[in-house]
Amino acid sequence: MVEQLDFPLSMADKLKAYLPPTSDACTHQETRVWTTLTFATSLDSSLALAPGVRTVLSGPESKAMTHYLRSRHDAILVGVGTAVADNPGLNCRISDSQHHPRPVVLDPNLRWDINSNSKVLQLAAIGSGMAPWVVTSVPMDDISQDKQDLLCSYGGKYIHVPLSSGAFEWTTLLEVLRDKGIRSVMVEGGGQVINSLLAAGSQAVVDGVIVTIAPTWLGGGGVVVCPDRQAPGLPAARLRDVKWLPMGDDVVLCGRLGG
Amino acid sequence: MVEQLDFPLSMADKLKAYLPPTSDACTHQETRVWTTLTFATSLDSSLALAPGVRTVLSGPESKAMTHYLRSRHDAILVGVGTAVADNPGLNCRISDSQHHPRPVVLDPNLRWDINSNSKVLQLAAIGSGMAPWVVTSVPMDDISQDKQDLLCSYGGKYIHVPLSSGAFEWTTLLEVLRDKGIRSVMVEGGGQVINSLLAAGSQAVVDGVIVTIAPTWLGGGGVVVCPDRQAPGLPAARLRDVKWLPMGDDVVLCGRLGG
Ligand SMILES: NC(=O)c1ccc[n+]([C@@H]2O[C@H](COP(=O)([O-])OP(=O)(O)OC[C@H]3O[C@@H](n4cnc5c(N)ncnc54)[C@H](OP(=O)(O)O)[C@@H]3O)[C@@H](O)[C@H]2O)c1
Ligand SMILES: NC(=O)c1ccc[n+]([C@@H]2O[C@H](COP(=O)([O-])OP(=O)(O)OC[C@H]3O[C@@H](n4cnc5c(N)ncnc54)[C@H](OP(=O)(O)O)[C@@H]3O)[C@@H](O)[C@H]2O)c1
Repeated sequence: MVEQLDFPLSMADKLKAYLPPTSDACTHQETRVWTTLTFATSLDSSLALAPGVRTVLSGPESKAMTHYLRSRHDAILVGVGTAVADNPGLNCRISDSQHHPRPVVLDPNLRWDINSNSKVLQLAAIGSGMAPWVVTSVPMDDISQDKQDLLCSYGGKYIHVPLSSGAFEWTTLLEVLRDKGIRSVMVEGGGQVINSLLAAGSQAVVDGVIVTIAPTWLGGGGVVVCPDRQAPGLPAARLRDVKWLPMGDDVVLCGRLGG
Repeated sequence: MVEQLDFPLSMADKLKAYLPPTSDACTHQETRVWTTLTFATSLDSSLALAPGVRTVLSGPESKAMTHYLRSRHDAILVGVGTAVADNPGLNCRISDSQHHPRPVVLDPNLRWDINSNSKVLQLAAIGSGMAPWVVTSVPMDDISQDKQDLLCSYGGKYIHVPLSSGAFEWTTLLEVLRDKGIRSVMVEGGGQVINSLLAAGSQAVVDGVIVTIAPTWLGGGGVVVCPDRQAPGLPAARLRDVKWLPMGDDVVLCGRLGG
């Protein structure tokens, strides 16, 4: 029996301004991909006790919210660190939603050993999720046909994007996704992906930020959200249009970057 | 003209359960010192951009709250790092309060060059604050008579407390304060003091936690709150009886430790 989650409409309403317009209200999406940055941290800005250590931070209400957010985006993006560490499902378990977001995994060096035991493929096989798009800097000709065929048989694919100064550029990434029909993406983690998106040069692509904070200090040694400073002595990023929504024992922080 | 702050009664009421009982309701204070841990951080758990860099994190509402908290405690405790870096006033600027908390500075090695230019003494001189008690591990005989006289002339003093494994023990510290008539103390910072109080062995002395979080990432290099883990693989601390109070652009998190 697959777990089903419910997220109250009253709460959904409060998040509305930070989420992509619904399809009947959209004009925006034709030109750019709406990008929501969303994750859960401890009070000391940790995502997890250590890479690969599944860490339940937030309560059931925030979990339901995460799945609601998944129901509201075309794609969900994570880094290969998360894919390798967590073997995540990346599907949507909101009970009244038929929609599953497209998992997009940033894996420049193809470190993820995706195979038939990977949760994301198992879910895709039973129609409870979509197969991932793996974004890599490895040229298609250098990816074995077997690997390509496996992913393809589930409905996923590899997408080649060149690196720029050692990393994918967010504007390029989002253009590639838009050209493949994605109108909205939620970026969910992990630490490196979030820090890269919160860097001064990338913030402009972010349309909404939704962060869950749990009343816990994980302590030293965790996977930490801590972006580079804009310049020495200047904060890395400040949110505007801020809203704090208490949710169970957690708080959900909504905002926009820059300005 | 001295700045005067106002904190709305409706807000004060919401903090009540996390603050020392008012004098007419007290039984508790005779045996132990009520200890409130309170500070303001960024989303990435920084107290300041760097030691000694005054960093305005929270908005005017939270500032007024801090001064309200000062009106509700007999003493306010900071580490010598904060005293040296910030030259803080440590007084109470709530407009309808006549009370100033007693500043207590943990300065085991007497690193703080307290002199007539120190803000805390200037405020004491004009009756707008109290002179500090400096808690040190230096034996009284080794503190020059001039230094002792200076502090004494403003109404402050040095207090000798021996170190235990290189640090003051919180239970000992609080007993010393209680024996000198202090019934409640708010511990305000900085990073090392907070981490020391959030350590597994000290949490039990904390009666209430009130943390302000500002919607800013300060970025790498700040003064960070990040306590040691209770044990490898276990979170450092979790709050219970949690309440989140949005206040301007910030949120105020109230809770209790342990349990
Ligand atoms: N609490 C939450 O909300 C949450 C959400 C998601 C994940 N997590 C946790 O986060 C942890 C993983 O975080 P992590 O920091 O180790 O890994 P990560 O951010 O998931 O992945 C990092 C890797 O992704 C690639 N990458 C990221 N940004 C890139 C860019 N702009 N361009 C090119 N490649 C990029 C790089 O791969 P290469 O090294 O191959 O270059 C990088 O090493 C896990 O423990 C997971 O549980 C928590
Ligand atoms: N945002 C806020 O709410 C807030 C509040 C207060 C301060 N701050 C900031 O915090 C920064 C200072 O923090 P910090 O971590 O550098 O310094 P700190 O915590 O103020 O002081 C640290 C020093 O105090 C002594 N100390 C602390 N705990 C002790 C214990 N249990 N036993 C004995 N000695 C103890 C030690 O002195 P020795 O080194 O001599 O052993 C230690 O180095 C400043 O930049 C200040 O602006 C921010």
